[in-house]
Amino acid sequence: MQLIDGKQTSRTVKDEIALEVKQMVASAKKRPHLAAVLVGNDGGSETYVAAKIKACEEVGFSSTLVRFDEDVSEQELLAAVNKLNKDEDIDGFIVQLPLPSHISEERITEAIDPSKDVDGFHPQNLGRMITGSDAYISATPQGIMELIKRYGIETSGKHVVIIGRSNIVGRPLSILLSLKGKPGDATVTLCHSRTKGLKELCLQADIIVVALGIPEFLKEDMVKEGAVVIDVGTTRVPSSETKSGWRLKGDVDFEKVAPKCSYITPVPGGVGPMTIASLLLNTLKAARKK
Amino acid sequence: MQLIDGKQTSRTVKDEIALEVKQMVASAKKRPHLAAVLVGNDGGSETYVAAKIKACEEVGFSSTLVRFDEDVSEQELLAAVNKLNKDEDIDGFIVQLPLPSHISEERITEAIDPSKDVDGFHPQNLGRMITGSDAYISATPQGIMELIKRYGIETSGKHVVIIGRSNIVGRPLSILLSLKGKPGDATVTLCHSRTKGLKELCLQADIIVVALGIPEFLKEDMVKEGAVVIDVGTTRVPSSETKSGWRLKGDVDFEKVAPKCSYITPVPGGVGPMTIASLLLNTLKAARKK
Repeated sequence: MQLIDGKQTSRTVKDEIALEVKQMVASAKKRPHLAAVLVGNDGGSETYVAAKIKACEEVGFSSTLVRFDEDVSEQELLAAVNKLNKDEDIDGFIVQLPLPSHISEERITEAIDPSKDVDGFHPQNLGRMITGSDAYISATPQGIMELIKRYGIETSGKHVVIIGRSNIVGRPLSILLSLKGKPGDATVTLCHSRTKGLKELCLQADIIVVALGIPEFLKEDMVKEGAVVIDVGTTRVPSSETKSGWRLKGDVDFEKVAPKCSYITPVPGGVGPMTIASLLLNTLKAARKK
Repeated sequence: MQLIDGKQTSRTVKDEIALEVKQMVASAKKRPHLAAVLVGNDGGSETYVAAKIKACEEVGFSSTLVRFDEDVSEQELLAAVNKLNKDEDIDGFIVQLPLPSHISEERITEAIDPSKDVDGFHPQNLGRMITGSDAYISATPQGIMELIKRYGIETSGKHVVIIGRSNIVGRPLSILLSLKGKPGDATVTLCHSRTKGLKELCLQADIIVVALGIPEFLKEDMVKEGAVVIDVGTTRVPSSETKSGWRLKGDVDFEKVAPKCSYITPVPGGVGPMTIASLLLNTLKAARKK
């Protein structure tokens, strides 16, 4: 069993990006610039955005944080998006989700210029992903693809079972893994709450991806010997062993499943750390295009 | 075994559309108007476009055919697309594919206003389909969804195996059938040329969709008793029994597979006739939005 070390891989990706940024700046090119729009004071969103800004600093990107109060109107937010669309110094930007309920996330997402949509949530980027055209891929699926690539995990002709059909993880990953290419060319089964016979399907899988948010959902009797297991779950569960009083639990019963696997991602330290690396990769890609 | 009669269903859909058009015109609304752009003199394209124009007449739509010689420049074609985008009388339009090799199909497709893209090929429509937002769905997958709906075939929790991952059939259908909804909520496995163990997968399937273009690919020993089989293949094979010297063959070994099925689409007369009905439905939808 080999552990897929997302923390280390993320560090490697960041080092590669930092090196390229140094070379860009040395050749008098503009420093890549990411902007983040944050609405309100949701604790989770604050933490995520702060981590993204910090990551920008680590790799030498410029960053801008645009804050709005919880009661900002949709029109004001659309105006801010338009301003960022037109700002030539901004290579890419994100609007941190979720937004307050009086604002349509769909309208905001679709207002972002697809060429600056480094979160990859704009339908144009989702659609281009389907046709295999150049597109920004959202952070989690791209992070998983990067781990699969860097660990040399074969996907061609393999049966991948993905559990969870969300727009930001399961669905796009099911598309990416079954596209022509490397990694890709897998036979993908997309499972969800309505799926019957999930255990039997999982037992056939060469690669299982769980993205449900149900701690320890995937048990050892659902995994065949030698399978690759990718755990996207990150649920906070109470813990007496940490200062914070909680710890992250994945969707896999790690202790019992891991010994059967050829490769497995831990939680924390697996898929999680790759998401910010993916956002940085997208921003670098946007900057390169200029 | 029940035959899924696409010819009859298509006629019913057209009758429903014709009725709605009558009511629109009676209440002084504009008649729906479809335009088709045809480049060159490819025999297949001529036939398809002629059939689309004829179908418009049948249901009471206005139609416009815009023709260009084979040697039209990409810029001229883009200008024509822009003109149609701006033409307020045109509710929707299509650019018949394939285009000559000196023109980028991607650029032309992306130049079409997504709100007039009744072929559903624009990435914005593909992307919105993923998120389950309102979108134009391309003709073949929409036609299949319509047949499934009208024949009351249960898809929720069913295992669907789709063979063929094309951008216009297999891929979008795999998305539509696994989205929440009715029809939908299926567990979908998308198979293709790289798939291993295809027979074993097919034998597990409650519903099999074959969209390969290989005559009689799906044999009786690949289908479980009571399965639903949807045949998207339409290959011309030589025939001494027809005046034309050829006939259409599907991807299913119909004679032997049909007796095992609960439902099956014939070729011809199954999925094929539904594609034009879908285009008309999309055009009507575009006209309704005005």
